[in-house]
Amino acid sequence: MKRVRMNIPKGIEPYLDEKRAIVDKALQEAVPQPSGLAGEMITSMNYSLFAGGKRLRPILCIAGAEAVGGSAETVLPVACALEFIHTYSLIHDDLPAMDNDDFRRGKPTNHTVFGEAVALLAGDGLLTLAFNMMARQGFEHDVDKGHLLRVIELISHAAGYKGMVGGQTVDISSEGKEPDPAVVEFIHRHKTGSLIAAAVTSGAILAGGTEEQEKAINRYGQQVGLAFQIADDVLNVEGDRALMGKGIGSDTARGKMTYPSVFGIAGSKRTQEELVDSAIDCLKGFNERADPLRGIARYSIRRKT
Amino acid sequence: MKRVRMNIPKGIEPYLDEKRAIVDKALQEAVPQPSGLAGEMITSMNYSLFAGGKRLRPILCIAGAEAVGGSAETVLPVACALEFIHTYSLIHDDLPAMDNDDFRRGKPTNHTVFGEAVALLAGDGLLTLAFNMMARQGFEHDVDKGHLLRVIELISHAAGYKGMVGGQTVDISSEGKEPDPAVVEFIHRHKTGSLIAAAVTSGAILAGGTEEQEKAINRYGQQVGLAFQIADDVLNVEGDRALMGKGIGSDTARGKMTYPSVFGIAGSKRTQEELVDSAIDCLKGFNERADPLRGIARYSIRRKT
Repeated sequence: MKRVRMNIPKGIEPYLDEKRAIVDKALQEAVPQPSGLAGEMITSMNYSLFAGGKRLRPILCIAGAEAVGGSAETVLPVACALEFIHTYSLIHDDLPAMDNDDFRRGKPTNHTVFGEAVALLAGDGLLTLAFNMMARQGFEHDVDKGHLLRVIELISHAAGYKGMVGGQTVDISSEGKEPDPAVVEFIHRHKTGSLIAAAVTSGAILAGGTEEQEKAINRYGQQVGLAFQIADDVLNVEGDRALMGKGIGSDTARGKMTYPSVFGIAGSKRTQEELVDSAIDCLKGFNERADPLRGIARYSIRRKT
Repeated sequence: MKRVRMNIPKGIEPYLDEKRAIVDKALQEAVPQPSGLAGEMITSMNYSLFAGGKRLRPILCIAGAEAVGGSAETVLPVACALEFIHTYSLIHDDLPAMDNDDFRRGKPTNHTVFGEAVALLAGDGLLTLAFNMMARQGFEHDVDKGHLLRVIELISHAAGYKGMVGGQTVDISSEGKEPDPAVVEFIHRHKTGSLIAAAVTSGAILAGGTEEQEKAINRYGQQVGLAFQIADDVLNVEGDRALMGKGIGSDTARGKMTYPSVFGIAGSKRTQEELVDSAIDCLKGFNERADPLRGIARYSIRRKT
């Protein structure tokens, strides 16, 4: 495979900005406004949902749809649901029983503001709302019900015990253990990779992509998902503290099993480059409509935060 | 409305035993077997799922289907999903950050056996698996996809911030506060009533009940759900410690807002009787196929555990 040294393509930043604005607007409309006796928990859901996320998963869902000829509009409810799931996972991961993080994206974590009980429940509420939002699309919008059920199945699989929840379990249980290449790959593929792959694949399914297109886009997503998490590990070592908004070096301090801890910084960077090349290679059967996916693959390891 | 003093009807215990066996078998087949790096979390999911639950929500789902002429088989995946959701809610409710309970049904709670991180993740895993199980039915079994999406919407609504999660939020935030009739009714209707109502209504929807039947069964479920939780409160005051398997009087010790704390024991018992009468009254347009629902309504407040 031919290797090309890549920078963030010129076109991708405006694309990301444009789609992020669309996603943010849809999230604002989708999320409940705090009211009633349980209002504080709803405030807590809102707090983490609008705490400066990159909206990578929703944007990948949109770009996956566009790559097979669809539009953002068709997939917006599912795109929002993906961000609900991602946000719930951050709230739960930050809890004292898990990673015990006080800051994320430069802001106090959910439980440090609202307390552990409310944070736990806000996470549960966001996860549940994600499935509500997806199911509702089945009769509120014009969408193929079979496609939608496949997407709900795919996303719940990727977020569940065989995916994100499984990855987080091993992430926690591996703290302080001897570096192990198979274990760190398991963690990253499950904790981060599977939901990212499900995000981009869901877009392709909902937009009516062929089976072959779905498979190619899913392989793309698996590679980008792993590359993205390796880049996160690298940023935790050598990122800019002011840009990152959380403690640099926190992974090492906690004995986290990361790519740098197993393969070193140089090895990790080599792997993430190879993964991005391989991801872009999965798209060779696609025309220029897949350019955003190509750009996002490069961006996934070039970003500063 | 004519009031009839009721005992547990003779027929309902064998019915509950029979359906519980069907549900237990389906749950055994549906739940993952522990394996792989995240095996302990899967063991933890299994632990709470088979810790002696009554399977009330799955049985109500089946009885709801039968009441409109359907069968258990059609609704078993959704029935299992309801038990996954109920079990997740118990695991999270028992956590130190929430109710901090060490025992449930006579067994150590999930986090006392597996630790808080694994318990939290096992709960997340069960909630996510519930939606996976339901969505999978859409292409693995012969079911109306529109009905299934409505059921996923209904159950996620009932389990979410407007239902169970909202109720639990207020349950926690009301501890030690002045007894308030409106607050305790909010807690019980949301924390317990909404998922019970969704369970029985889901059965009716999946089995192709008419809109009128669905509405009647949903009203039945709302009444039974509230009655069931009031009966729980009463059992916490005057239940048999050996049968209950958890601390009698624990609600009072914790300053929980319960029906007895607001209305007294006599007032609570009167209300639960009225609710059961009213629930059965909702079924007046149904023939003998709804007898199990009538029996379960009476059982909901006559049980010893």
